[in-house]
Amino acid sequence: MDLDRRALLGAGAALTCAPQILPAQAQPAAGPPPVTAILARYIVKAKPADIPDTVKREARRSLLNYVGVAVGGSRHETVARAIAALAPFAGKPQANLLGRRERFDILHAALVNGISSHIFDYDDTHLKTIIHPAGPVMSAALALAQHRTVSGADFLHAAILGMETECRIGNAVFPSHYDMGWHITGSCGTFGSAAACGKLLGLNEQQVIWALGIAASQPVGLKIQFGSMTKSFHPGRAAQNGLTAALLAAQDFTADNRALEGKDGWAQALSREVKWQEVTQGLGSRFEAALNTYKPFACGIVTHPAIDAAIRLRNENKLTTDDIVSVRLHANPLVLSLTGKKEPRSGLEGKFSIYHCVAVGLIYGAAGERQFQDGIVRDAKVIALRRKVSVQADPTVDPAGCEVTIRLKDGRTLSRKIQDAIGSLKNPMSDKALEAKFFDLADGILPAPQARRLADLCWTIEKASDAGAIARTAAI
Amino acid sequence: MDLDRRALLGAGAALTCAPQILPAQAQPAAGPPPVTAILARYIVKAKPADIPDTVKREARRSLLNYVGVAVGGSRHETVARAIAALAPFAGKPQANLLGRRERFDILHAALVNGISSHIFDYDDTHLKTIIHPAGPVMSAALALAQHRTVSGADFLHAAILGMETECRIGNAVFPSHYDMGWHITGSCGTFGSAAACGKLLGLNEQQVIWALGIAASQPVGLKIQFGSMTKSFHPGRAAQNGLTAALLAAQDFTADNRALEGKDGWAQALSREVKWQEVTQGLGSRFEAALNTYKPFACGIVTHPAIDAAIRLRNENKLTTDDIVSVRLHANPLVLSLTGKKEPRSGLEGKFSIYHCVAVGLIYGAAGERQFQDGIVRDAKVIALRRKVSVQADPTVDPAGCEVTIRLKDGRTLSRKIQDAIGSLKNPMSDKALEAKFFDLADGILPAPQARRLADLCWTIEKASDAGAIARTAAI
Repeated sequence: MDLDRRALLGAGAALTCAPQILPAQAQPAAGPPPVTAILARYIVKAKPADIPDTVKREARRSLLNYVGVAVGGSRHETVARAIAALAPFAGKPQANLLGRRERFDILHAALVNGISSHIFDYDDTHLKTIIHPAGPVMSAALALAQHRTVSGADFLHAAILGMETECRIGNAVFPSHYDMGWHITGSCGTFGSAAACGKLLGLNEQQVIWALGIAASQPVGLKIQFGSMTKSFHPGRAAQNGLTAALLAAQDFTADNRALEGKDGWAQALSREVKWQEVTQGLGSRFEAALNTYKPFACGIVTHPAIDAAIRLRNENKLTTDDIVSVRLHANPLVLSLTGKKEPRSGLEGKFSIYHCVAVGLIYGAAGERQFQDGIVRDAKVIALRRKVSVQADPTVDPAGCEVTIRLKDGRTLSRKIQDAIGSLKNPMSDKALEAKFFDLADGILPAPQARRLADLCWTIEKASDAGAIARTAAI
Repeated sequence: MDLDRRALLGAGAALTCAPQILPAQAQPAAGPPPVTAILARYIVKAKPADIPDTVKREARRSLLNYVGVAVGGSRHETVARAIAALAPFAGKPQANLLGRRERFDILHAALVNGISSHIFDYDDTHLKTIIHPAGPVMSAALALAQHRTVSGADFLHAAILGMETECRIGNAVFPSHYDMGWHITGSCGTFGSAAACGKLLGLNEQQVIWALGIAASQPVGLKIQFGSMTKSFHPGRAAQNGLTAALLAAQDFTADNRALEGKDGWAQALSREVKWQEVTQGLGSRFEAALNTYKPFACGIVTHPAIDAAIRLRNENKLTTDDIVSVRLHANPLVLSLTGKKEPRSGLEGKFSIYHCVAVGLIYGAAGERQFQDGIVRDAKVIALRRKVSVQADPTVDPAGCEVTIRLKDGRTLSRKIQDAIGSLKNPMSDKALEAKFFDLADGILPAPQARRLADLCWTIEKASDAGAIARTAAI
């Protein structure tokens, strides 16, 4: 007897062979709510006029930040290799690659733009889940907007619905899902992309249920990939998978009606715990998309309070490097355990060096992608200053804050305490600061007047008759 | 303070921003073996001459069965909808869709052929894991063989390595992974496709490690989709994802070196338990690909012993419907709980009706896809006979066996006991029976002489100078 009971049972379960549209199952009294259907109904019924202005404003800021980081990342070797690998198989040149000359079919454009957006890890952050919301959603929606004319108002609305969908699903399974090993931006981003594209395609409720279901079957992203090119692949593939799901659903390609919450469904397989009320409660009145934040510095958030303090000390006191005898950082031990590299040798290593971060903050008043180039990390002046930096680790210091104390040659001591670093929810980047980050990222890739037009397009997206103009203006 | 500790920690972990090739980490004494690297080394070093003839023979049978089910499934609405959805975005016509006229780029061809191969749930089965090994692997390898000329011997070898990879990884995580909700054909099939395509592309060890790593980040398939079109999407997308992974790796697109076994890697996220010795022990000497089985009947394995008994009774006694007064099946209770539908109304429902299965076995001496067409299920003669069938459920009967007893009008009683049903490992389908299944599936889609040529090509694949000939001959 070679067929064991288990295989027989399994094969029996696999009996449901030919496709069919299953009727929605009766809801068991104690079972989960029909989350997939609830989300689909919301997505289909939602109207731009129902979205509060504060949410739309944050979405425009997310858009500007997204376009900036994607243009900025577009020249990275990661993007070049993905293009080299996939160009021979891409379809008609339907959509632009941000920051580049090539045009791809919309599925591949969504993939590549999503990769570009995450390369510097300088994108947006939904702090409750550590999801980077815009990459998967906007990469897909923008590519689709080049295939099917979409007004700017509808585009922004679909992007809001997409970010809402991915962040709410993320809230429902965080932290269990993240702790299991999933890179939540990819695994939940697929839903965001499917939702946004489903809205733009005008799917009906059943079709959006299918789109979310097809998305559920193709999650992307493991945390082990942090440090490799595949990390950036995650939001790109999530964008492409969600777009694929929506396109299939538009042709009535069926999926289970309870793919998220049902037995043997997404949440069961991808999380140990789930809080479905995080998806359903306040849907349409409380917006996760409004909680998006943006990094002012091109490195991990744990270093941001110290950089913020360094820049303030520099600017408030018109410091120059020559004035400084020593720099002392009083910070949570996390800072040293995650970014304790004393002598970084490359741009990447510089991101893991709190010493380098503080030094460039003091010298340049900035810590953008530019301050993490290899040349800067190896610059003699930078090296000299970062050797003057010391760190006092203290578990009583909140990780979101710190104190920096500088001794000067003239004998003075300057000190700056930070509680909510710039870029946090309580101390968000100003529109002006976001725009400066955008121009810094676009510099050297887009001519200045084009970058200006692009920023204006993002700020005024709701007045645009064709959202695809963003992608065209972001290309060279 | 809006930044909570968790978000900071997460963002800190995400610090590793820019891609880099990480050095292989030192192996902790009690940690898992470097499974990803071990597999990669095996895949790169393996030679066709190292594969025992019995394994090659089984692989040829897997190939014939794969091509048959893909051609047979190719006209299904599921395929039509996938093509309608994706054709506008497909690339150059590089590869054939089996059983069809369209040609797609190789990535989309791999997807569509994988979908076709699974539609009837009539494909091959690796009984230890319930993986359907050929679909993800051969759909990808065959499409790739149309882009880059590959000899039949190299093609078969790569397919064996792919099936070995997916089944061994499946063994390592079964049953936990399956019980969590994963449709294991999709989730493990991605590795099989990546391995086969990596071999065909001539990747080096580091590149195969990356290919497996990129595959790890994009598992496909949830069991909740059983009964919807998305079930068939799983092997197709697994084929496409694995091929994508190999193509990216060929351009040195990096992934973590321990994506399968490392912390926050595939096994941690997708299984509660793992037995890595299932991957590593006997690699290259004991072949899971040799354990493939093929369904003689187009329905779940639990019904197969009864159908086998019915066909034997019919053929051995030259029975006709008119002779029969009653049919009694003595079987494991699983048969009734999984396929107890008394009055099926459609072809699909017929697959869930042991009564229908036994009736068509007795009338037609077969239970192929044809016997589960709507017209057959609604045929008066079939209905009359299946109403004469009764089932005695008995937990002492092994699910792989049964006994069927027939009372005839002339007073005689005929009885047939089955221990290892046809199609099981101990009682495999003969080459002749496999070929009959193939021709039955191809009938009405490919002209008979073309089907004959196609079968011959599969049987003699190792003599072919160009494996792509299979795909060309399987198209119309």
